[in-house]
Amino acid sequence: MNNQLVHTPEGVRDIYGEEYAKKLKVQEQLHNKLHAYGYLDIQTPTFEYFDVFSKEVGTTPSKELYKFFDKEGSTLVLRPDFTPSMARCAAKYFADDMPIRFTYLGNTFTNTSNLQGKLKEVTQMGVELIGDASVEADAEMISMVIETLLQTGLEDFQISVGQMEYFKGICAACGMDEETELTLREYISSKNYFAAEELLINKKVRKDYKEVLLKITDLFGTADALTEAKALVTNERSLNAIYRLENLYKVLCDYGVEKYVSFDLGLLSKYNYYTGVVFKAYTYGVGDAIITGGRYDNLLQRFGKKAPAIGAAIVVDDLMIALSRQKIKIDINRDSVLLVYTKDTYSKALAKAKELRNQGSAVEMVLLRDDKTKEEYEAFAAKNLHKEVLFI
Amino acid sequence: MNNQLVHTPEGVRDIYGEEYAKKLKVQEQLHNKLHAYGYLDIQTPTFEYFDVFSKEVGTTPSKELYKFFDKEGSTLVLRPDFTPSMARCAAKYFADDMPIRFTYLGNTFTNTSNLQGKLKEVTQMGVELIGDASVEADAEMISMVIETLLQTGLEDFQISVGQMEYFKGICAACGMDEETELTLREYISSKNYFAAEELLINKKVRKDYKEVLLKITDLFGTADALTEAKALVTNERSLNAIYRLENLYKVLCDYGVEKYVSFDLGLLSKYNYYTGVVFKAYTYGVGDAIITGGRYDNLLQRFGKKAPAIGAAIVVDDLMIALSRQKIKIDINRDSVLLVYTKDTYSKALAKAKELRNQGSAVEMVLLRDDKTKEEYEAFAAKNLHKEVLFI
Repeated sequence: MNNQLVHTPEGVRDIYGEEYAKKLKVQEQLHNKLHAYGYLDIQTPTFEYFDVFSKEVGTTPSKELYKFFDKEGSTLVLRPDFTPSMARCAAKYFADDMPIRFTYLGNTFTNTSNLQGKLKEVTQMGVELIGDASVEADAEMISMVIETLLQTGLEDFQISVGQMEYFKGICAACGMDEETELTLREYISSKNYFAAEELLINKKVRKDYKEVLLKITDLFGTADALTEAKALVTNERSLNAIYRLENLYKVLCDYGVEKYVSFDLGLLSKYNYYTGVVFKAYTYGVGDAIITGGRYDNLLQRFGKKAPAIGAAIVVDDLMIALSRQKIKIDINRDSVLLVYTKDTYSKALAKAKELRNQGSAVEMVLLRDDKTKEEYEAFAAKNLHKEVLFI
Repeated sequence: MNNQLVHTPEGVRDIYGEEYAKKLKVQEQLHNKLHAYGYLDIQTPTFEYFDVFSKEVGTTPSKELYKFFDKEGSTLVLRPDFTPSMARCAAKYFADDMPIRFTYLGNTFTNTSNLQGKLKEVTQMGVELIGDASVEADAEMISMVIETLLQTGLEDFQISVGQMEYFKGICAACGMDEETELTLREYISSKNYFAAEELLINKKVRKDYKEVLLKITDLFGTADALTEAKALVTNERSLNAIYRLENLYKVLCDYGVEKYVSFDLGLLSKYNYYTGVVFKAYTYGVGDAIITGGRYDNLLQRFGKKAPAIGAAIVVDDLMIALSRQKIKIDINRDSVLLVYTKDTYSKALAKAKELRNQGSAVEMVLLRDDKTKEEYEAFAAKNLHKEVLFI
């Protein structure tokens, strides 16, 4: 038989049974917590015009986009990321100047060719808070994502918080051109110290700036790291970045979530659109961040509305891997019965099923067969997440 | 500004605010009912290999598929329909011979060029019952979809039930070739009486068969239509089709849902894969069927497993239109508060928000501004689905 009839394409998969029941449960937990902060659901199309995700808006490289055409000849793209779509909506539908709180759930698509077994279709649940430039907005975003993770039963995790402006302030102070800054940012965020050093030497960056820039990857840890970082700079932009983080820390203490927070000034996002505070959540059992987020105060103006914004995206599939590897129990809690009937007892069984369903139970009805044992029905019930088997 | 930065592509849209809250609520109602029948959730990839949806499997015309390529050079397709993916999964993961009950929720994609304002991305929730050829399976499927509709508050709707075998039996009896049968089926299902008659005359179909085939479009109504249909045929296949519908009607009476059911032997699906019972749900306010379903006993063998199957898909977006036009209230019921604070009351407001959130309320916090009136905050709260405004 044709192989392509049985298999899913490279990098995408089916999910069902207990695994999917758990994923749905976790999504519900996350969603409830985001609702508790007053975020309203939004759904954007699975594909958008290419321009929404083009390089200028600053997201996934063009070669990693799934591109195709509509009947009108426009280039469409499967969304690799939600934030540009959310920015488009915020600019389009919300003319007033009050804050906007969005939450979304859906899949993102990246047409990578890497062979590391990374998924090309990934479920993300995320939030955007648009129209609020305050440190309270930063704090709400970070404490909310901490609470969503706690909601799932995850406990051993850390949110690393950085500030793009600290790095950018130093680059501006030493008159670095934009291209060098972007390259340097990539080296630093991938902790490639030697490449960063070589670049700074080649570009003849002044020794004192060079030393600070190379030290950035060491500026991480508790709030003490901020004191250290402050002592290294004199330019106002970098100093303001640190003041912002200090204020943020205070509000996070008000929320009572400070023990989950650490700082990392070497945390620089690969997304061009981030401007101020950036953060990532890490936990055991999965290499990549399970949450990424940050401020993107300049993105909305590309869509015709100037407004500050901050957002975060939870990578649900990676979170599920972490929960599974950390053996955190997810209670899928189905009040569910397998009801086995015979040709003769069908009407009676149907009446029983109705009664149980009216009481809130799920009932799956199957016909008793001579070639199946009681144990086989029990195994079948277990696989289908039933709590009991009823023979009628 | 670039137009493609603000707009969604032709035929797809954003959904948010009260409209999306209602859609999510209805999806939850539908989902709960499908769970009550023991259906388990499954999620397949948004795109599949082209072959899964190719003409042989019998679904959307190739020119209406969104096609693109992966890095490996394979042709991928955004799913236009879930059933082939479900059949693929059933064949791949379920080696035993017990029934399989799947439910799914997701979007489907059809690259039409029509200008009737039809959506190209449509949300469907559906079910498949695989491995059960019985009339009880047909009845479960139909009564379950009736109950899902009732769950949403819809009351004025009808499920039209047909049987492909009645038509096929007549075509086989008069020795009609497959191509003519397919063309005739299209004419009949679109109620194009004159084209059907012309075709039958051109193909020199015997007068008595011709008359029966042309009468098929009149064979609809209550269970009496079955008696009439039975009197018109002598071939065993068509007769068995009627016996099956008569038995189905009996079981639907057991379920107590017969008042929502009518019969229509002219109901012939455009999907090639349907074999026996087919059905569609119609209601006021929307032209197309809000539910389509039927038996597809030959589809699974294309994926390597021979098994009977029946399924149904609820077109959620069309159901939402019907609910809205029929002014059926959807209780989105958010226990939700807008909390307006000042710079000075922030800590106090945060404590209050925590308290309310712990009690299960949703709380959105916004800063009080001099340029906004109390009425403006109230209007903002209403738009964001809050029940009250609290100034602290």
